[in-house]
Amino acid sequence: MAKSSKLSKDDWLYRLRHSLSHIMAQAVLEIRPGARLGFGPPVENGFYYDFLLDEPVSDAEFLDLEQRMRRIIAENQKFERALRPVAESLCFLEDRRQPLKVEYAQDLARRGESSLSFYRNGPFEDMCEGPHLESTGEVPENCFRLDSVAGAYWRGSEKNAMLSRIYGLAFPSAADLQRFLERRDLAKERDHRKLGQLLGIFTFDDDVGRGLPLWLPNGTTVRDELEALAREVEFRGGYQRVTTPHITKGGLYRLSGHLSHYKDSMFPPMHISDEDEDEDYYLKPMNCPHHHKIYASRPRSYRELPLRLAEFGVVYRYERSGQCAGLLRVRGMCQNDSHIYLANEQVKEEVKRVLELHRVYYEMFRLKDYWIRLSLRAPDSEKYVGQADLWELSEKVVREVLQELAIPFVEELGEAAFYGPKIDFQMQTLLGREETAATTQLDFVMAERFGLEFTDRDGQKRRPYIIHRAPLGTHERFLSYLLEHLNGAFPTWLAPVHVRILPVSEKFLGYAARLRAELVQDLFRAELDEGNERLNKKVLEAVTHKIPNLFVVGGRDQEGGTVSWRRYCRGNEQKVVRFEDARGILRTLRAGRVMDNFPDVAVPGW
Amino acid sequence: MAKSSKLSKDDWLYRLRHSLSHIMAQAVLEIRPGARLGFGPPVENGFYYDFLLDEPVSDAEFLDLEQRMRRIIAENQKFERALRPVAESLCFLEDRRQPLKVEYAQDLARRGESSLSFYRNGPFEDMCEGPHLESTGEVPENCFRLDSVAGAYWRGSEKNAMLSRIYGLAFPSAADLQRFLERRDLAKERDHRKLGQLLGIFTFDDDVGRGLPLWLPNGTTVRDELEALAREVEFRGGYQRVTTPHITKGGLYRLSGHLSHYKDSMFPPMHISDEDEDEDYYLKPMNCPHHHKIYASRPRSYRELPLRLAEFGVVYRYERSGQCAGLLRVRGMCQNDSHIYLANEQVKEEVKRVLELHRVYYEMFRLKDYWIRLSLRAPDSEKYVGQADLWELSEKVVREVLQELAIPFVEELGEAAFYGPKIDFQMQTLLGREETAATTQLDFVMAERFGLEFTDRDGQKRRPYIIHRAPLGTHERFLSYLLEHLNGAFPTWLAPVHVRILPVSEKFLGYAARLRAELVQDLFRAELDEGNERLNKKVLEAVTHKIPNLFVVGGRDQEGGTVSWRRYCRGNEQKVVRFEDARGILRTLRAGRVMDNFPDVAVPGW
Repeated sequence: MAKSSKLSKDDWLYRLRHSLSHIMAQAVLEIRPGARLGFGPPVENGFYYDFLLDEPVSDAEFLDLEQRMRRIIAENQKFERALRPVAESLCFLEDRRQPLKVEYAQDLARRGESSLSFYRNGPFEDMCEGPHLESTGEVPENCFRLDSVAGAYWRGSEKNAMLSRIYGLAFPSAADLQRFLERRDLAKERDHRKLGQLLGIFTFDDDVGRGLPLWLPNGTTVRDELEALAREVEFRGGYQRVTTPHITKGGLYRLSGHLSHYKDSMFPPMHISDEDEDEDYYLKPMNCPHHHKIYASRPRSYRELPLRLAEFGVVYRYERSGQCAGLLRVRGMCQNDSHIYLANEQVKEEVKRVLELHRVYYEMFRLKDYWIRLSLRAPDSEKYVGQADLWELSEKVVREVLQELAIPFVEELGEAAFYGPKIDFQMQTLLGREETAATTQLDFVMAERFGLEFTDRDGQKRRPYIIHRAPLGTHERFLSYLLEHLNGAFPTWLAPVHVRILPVSEKFLGYAARLRAELVQDLFRAELDEGNERLNKKVLEAVTHKIPNLFVVGGRDQEGGTVSWRRYCRGNEQKVVRFEDARGILRTLRAGRVMDNFPDVAVPGW
Repeated sequence: MAKSSKLSKDDWLYRLRHSLSHIMAQAVLEIRPGARLGFGPPVENGFYYDFLLDEPVSDAEFLDLEQRMRRIIAENQKFERALRPVAESLCFLEDRRQPLKVEYAQDLARRGESSLSFYRNGPFEDMCEGPHLESTGEVPENCFRLDSVAGAYWRGSEKNAMLSRIYGLAFPSAADLQRFLERRDLAKERDHRKLGQLLGIFTFDDDVGRGLPLWLPNGTTVRDELEALAREVEFRGGYQRVTTPHITKGGLYRLSGHLSHYKDSMFPPMHISDEDEDEDYYLKPMNCPHHHKIYASRPRSYRELPLRLAEFGVVYRYERSGQCAGLLRVRGMCQNDSHIYLANEQVKEEVKRVLELHRVYYEMFRLKDYWIRLSLRAPDSEKYVGQADLWELSEKVVREVLQELAIPFVEELGEAAFYGPKIDFQMQTLLGREETAATTQLDFVMAERFGLEFTDRDGQKRRPYIIHRAPLGTHERFLSYLLEHLNGAFPTWLAPVHVRILPVSEKFLGYAARLRAELVQDLFRAELDEGNERLNKKVLEAVTHKIPNLFVVGGRDQEGGTVSWRRYCRGNEQKVVRFEDARGILRTLRAGRVMDNFPDVAVPGW
């Protein structure tokens, strides 16, 4: 599924959305003739237009506006372009009393434009580069909807006037719009911030700082289980785990180039010395330099390669305050990181292994809504370091691997790391936003900078290549996906609570407590609902918290040594199982990391 | 085993050491009549004296000096005290050409002393407060030895002259001295820094920074196993794990009091705002404030108490550069931390549970060389916060628990945390230095500062008490002990490599590789020695690295499906065991965390 959510101007959808913004502006001018127009571009999922209004537009007026838009569409007005000399353009815009447009036209004139582009459809005419549809009649039926109004400063500056930004949704067809709306409803329902609070996964605290999650007990359990999974997978894959500090002296980042290429994303230094800024300490934004230092801590032989150093390393990045959003964008994050040091001829095979690792994880969690982006440098950009021929070679190797594996991918210029090309795993969030979930980089620069080498078979010293990889991304981002993807319903092995025991009445508290004790003895995260509420309420409470397994116990269970077992993913179904057998099944689910949250996954014995 | 290594002036050993420093000075003046005397105090393990010398004293002259000291002892010179008025003192010291002593006497005069104390024995007389032995003849035979010469600035300042500091060792008896020397030899042999390098546990790198260990793969394995142990123990103990960031805004530490009481031990801030220093970020020196924030993240009920929040939290403290020593004193450390929030009436029982937890761990690792220090506030010191009556109550509670458990302890004033009394587990390092391995604190201050509360049975809001505890201390310190205590020989479950397979010749590489694959499949850390060296050399290599289990495999093993099993702790003993059985035994050792590095521990089937 190779795709990208960025539209080019040539796309029909771009023109559709752009045309709808003009159609909406025409409708707004009908009900607010004094409206001053700002900008009205197409955006992700639709379009908007900014208006300076004497009287605001309310959501209640959306129906009226939409009706007017439908009328304009039915009129099948032609979009016609006209070029006007600057002086004429300014007269035209002043004549129409559009001071914001006048201001912008003056800017364009100052930049040396001699004539300006306008688009007219019916009575509406706007200074605009286009492109648009042929005519309003081309807009498919029921493919749009007005969505919301928000405040926005003219040209993004707080010093300017506050405009009303009316957002519209627009998709290629009514069905697409419908799908988006359903998906968005689902996304609201499944917002990881909402689920995170409900399930006791994480919290934030202003005194601690923005974008710095405090992981609550349930969240820590899920993180720990994910780490245990990765440790096992990586152990089998020949990785070796290391542990490095969260800080380092500035000199290391001058050597790596982070201070020249990445400083804006770093926290400010801890100032130690006025004489030597290399003595200042920095929070690490990446684990790489620390791992390179471990590689360099003793001489290396070709026999050790590929040397795979792995760490769940916590890194800190100073995201702008407004960028922080739940777990999706944070300032402190724990990466499933590894650096693989290897010889030239091992690169292809190892990149394949790394991609295979991603596939294993994604299939396990049934994450399907992703695609692969090959991120290349932007030629001529000064952002990138290293020789041009090595860049070409590396980009070629990575492209070939993807082709050999027949993995579809999109290429994107200017998205590479400053030290090499990347294979990015792009995910679409439930809200339709594209985010990078994991990234694999091929690096031919850092070994040189750090003087890393190995003694090859022939006794010669050679530089290793370095693969940077993090298939589970960060705990923060991965869990934000997983929460939304699973709607908070974790499989037994991953769930904060493996099983909750619900006695049908106080009489069976003793039996329930005995079962719980046996389960805890066996290291199961087993809870006992000791409350006085009625069973229905207890079940509802447990279901609300998406606990995967409920053992309801009553008189017959106590006599027979059984439990009445309900599984979250199977709703009201209930099976009576001998406790010994139930425990055995739980052991199997845990040990095999069975994804029993999916109702189609067979749970033997249930 | 309650003891403390700090001597008071009243101790006979203090007087012995102090007297020996005078005896040494007398001997030095015999061979260097022009020596200018600095200070000569008793210290841990012995004494020193600082001399300004025209010609340095060499180690080779120690024998001569020791002989002279023995002669002085044999002369049984009486120590006699004399008080001299200041003016007379200055004349006396100038007369003896002792400019350093003159300088010090002038200082004392400026501080208001009207007369100064001198001690004379035989021809030697020194300005000195004492106390000393009755006479030199009181020094036991062979109880001392001159040890080393080092440079030391007069009065510790680089601006002053460099003196020669001659160190002597001195103990109550010849046997004690002998024991110390043996222990020191052992300590050199077992120095965790040496073992840490040999076993690939950790390394340091100047570019990363002092006191910031990089944990190598073997070290990370040991840490992970220790964490897994603690997680299991704490799960059974009702703890809940949390995960918190390594930084926080300054305001939190102003609230907690760390900025006023602990700032000197913290890294400098990451400066964000010139307007509000509370917006600056700090590395956390302790996990407490973050945990308190988690406690405060929602309303708490008495039903939840004791609420035990646990974290392997990495904290950073800016130890002075000269203080950093291997893993024993570092600037970044991972604590086996927990904060237990509980009601008044639960304190005693919970402190008992916490102390019991320490006992379990220490017995498991056979750590016996520790004692308990009850660290109390120094009354009248301004270092401590909180009401005096609460201090008294808390100190009383902790003392009572120790008494009820019949745990011997020493009390020490001035060693409490700024917010409450501590129970410190003091360890003696192999070198005889006293260090705090773990600490439990009872805190009645922070709940007030953070506004923590719970709704009690009666509906009233109450403040919880807080217990701070970390029975395994920090990974860094605990592993430095463990390495030295076990001489690097870890039990199977904790060892970086569970088993190494040594084929007796190339012919059996295939069989050996098959066994290794089966063990790795079973998540055993199994290695294969594929080298061409002879078996003896392979065995030696494995033994040097203290690998607990070696499977030697040859022709008869291949035919019979067996291995010839050698265990590190049993030297050259070797048993032929069917591979299936051997794997079963390894499973038992791992699952049960059997301390099979101790030769007396039974390993069933071996």
